[in-house]
Amino acid sequence: MTRTRPNPDTSGQRRRRRHNEDVGKTRQGEEMSEDVAPARVAGVIGLGSMGMGVALSLLRAGFRVIGCDGEAAKCMSLVTHGGEAAGSPAELGRHVERVIVLVATADQVEQVLFGPDGIAATLPKGAIVVQSATVPASFAADVGRRLAALGLLMLDAPVSGGPVKAAEGRMTIMASGPDEAFERAEDLLAAASGTLHRVGAEHGQGSVVKTINQLLAGVHIAASAEAMAFGIRAGVDPQRIYDVITSSAGNSWMFENRVPHILNGDYSPHSAVDIFVKDLGIVTDSARRMTFPTPLASTALQMFTMAASAGLGREDDAAVIKIFERLAGITLPKAGNPTEG
Amino acid sequence: MTRTRPNPDTSGQRRRRRHNEDVGKTRQGEEMSEDVAPARVAGVIGLGSMGMGVALSLLRAGFRVIGCDGEAAKCMSLVTHGGEAAGSPAELGRHVERVIVLVATADQVEQVLFGPDGIAATLPKGAIVVQSATVPASFAADVGRRLAALGLLMLDAPVSGGPVKAAEGRMTIMASGPDEAFERAEDLLAAASGTLHRVGAEHGQGSVVKTINQLLAGVHIAASAEAMAFGIRAGVDPQRIYDVITSSAGNSWMFENRVPHILNGDYSPHSAVDIFVKDLGIVTDSARRMTFPTPLASTALQMFTMAASAGLGREDDAAVIKIFERLAGITLPKAGNPTEG
Repeated sequence: MTRTRPNPDTSGQRRRRRHNEDVGKTRQGEEMSEDVAPARVAGVIGLGSMGMGVALSLLRAGFRVIGCDGEAAKCMSLVTHGGEAAGSPAELGRHVERVIVLVATADQVEQVLFGPDGIAATLPKGAIVVQSATVPASFAADVGRRLAALGLLMLDAPVSGGPVKAAEGRMTIMASGPDEAFERAEDLLAAASGTLHRVGAEHGQGSVVKTINQLLAGVHIAASAEAMAFGIRAGVDPQRIYDVITSSAGNSWMFENRVPHILNGDYSPHSAVDIFVKDLGIVTDSARRMTFPTPLASTALQMFTMAASAGLGREDDAAVIKIFERLAGITLPKAGNPTEG
Repeated sequence: MTRTRPNPDTSGQRRRRRHNEDVGKTRQGEEMSEDVAPARVAGVIGLGSMGMGVALSLLRAGFRVIGCDGEAAKCMSLVTHGGEAAGSPAELGRHVERVIVLVATADQVEQVLFGPDGIAATLPKGAIVVQSATVPASFAADVGRRLAALGLLMLDAPVSGGPVKAAEGRMTIMASGPDEAFERAEDLLAAASGTLHRVGAEHGQGSVVKTINQLLAGVHIAASAEAMAFGIRAGVDPQRIYDVITSSAGNSWMFENRVPHILNGDYSPHSAVDIFVKDLGIVTDSARRMTFPTPLASTALQMFTMAASAGLGREDDAAVIKIFERLAGITLPKAGNPTEG
């Protein structure tokens, strides 16, 4: 574990001042209290854009934060912001009683919890794992059972909102689990999120709601691409289409958010095509496991898979429109070359 | 032509007073002027929920309005509100120089314009037809050419917003056509709509944009149904799903608007399943004519067609979720029996 704070108490004062400036006195006054200091330690496993955002939000809220990530550079970045770093999940488990897991895939969750250097074996009994990766609901339920068998609490607590909201501590969390777990994680979740939805008492329900959100988000991005491509092929100015749709009943959060990437010809990834190959895969796998049909999610998954097969997996998910460019030869707006108004 | 006004001037005063109360003095002051009275006559063909809304909006704005509809009851309803009624489109054409067509299908447009009792043959040269039905863009372009050959102007001007906005004069209009047609219809469009989008100078472009809106609207309604059905099947409280999604990136205008029908178990038609069988049919037919793929619109069309085949065509379009009830036996919320919060 890497520490940069020569004197924890002094550093604590410094953080509190910074927090006070950033967040305002009321919130600081509510959340800071010397006598609960031992409880205000949090672990964060996975320091990607979402995990790092949570870690920094917790630091701002006055937590002592110990991070863990396979990439040393990410650990060092956390340290330069006033956090600490553990060499492995197992090491982290010796220093915290509450940990948020924000890795990318179910395989990674399996590894950081139950792998050879996993945290489940080293956390003290009664510790709580807030599992926030997007995973199949059946997997989340299974992880909850396995942690319970080790005397550990869990929240099934996927997040939504993207890196910007994560960095601001304003993510949406959709969580399920026992009341005791919610109580134990309350201040942690409050510091990391703008909105906390308690969607049920059973593990898996949080992940079901996240799966539903990804079903809709993925279908809406693919539908935005299909609609814009159709309009461009028919010879209508894409900017006009955007202007009309965003004031009409055909609008969606994703249309409004992603179509500007198309209009600007900018496919630098905010969230990548590959993410929806993964997440719509979770949707359709989960549905198939329930013998439940998902015609639109399956179709959208095929469209993102077409894009990934064309080498576009690492581009922004709005690049799913390029399947229409490759197939039908439509001319998409170029970067720095706005369409005529 | 049916008239109820024993003395047009007196009635005009009465209408003006009502308009003044409803809409406010400024707008009334701008739009009412005795000396332009001859130009302020408008015909409306099709007095369904949208057409009637437009007719009443025009009356409120001080127009003399002559309506025409195959159903006598609708004509009489307009008359009781201070309008007049023509016995046929051909008769209407002898009394107006500006007419809005708001029938349901391209076949009906063909009939009211060019059929045996059609208006195209009786309108004076230079008259203008505002064609606002949802029709294929190729059909709209063709109608524009045929009207031009008769010396008539046209706007390709589909509308969006539903009956409530139509009644309030706050529809969105997405229109294309020559500048002269826009100038001639300006006050008419202003009285009927909250937002007017000029999307191009060529007939067909307005209908392309409307087609795009219907593509997205139809996919979003079907996706809302798929997502809610999936969540219900997985055992999550549907009200919770609604609460989370409407504050998350998976939200759409249609999700927010239609899912309450599902939660309330109320499928009385605002807009019917059959409308999307028709409109997504226009989307996919138009795309096929351009040899252009529309995987999501085609899938959504199949879902609405499944619903119609199950006898649900006249129910609200949110009833597309019932395909999952019939197939997979999920239990949807019942009317007057809200789910537990």
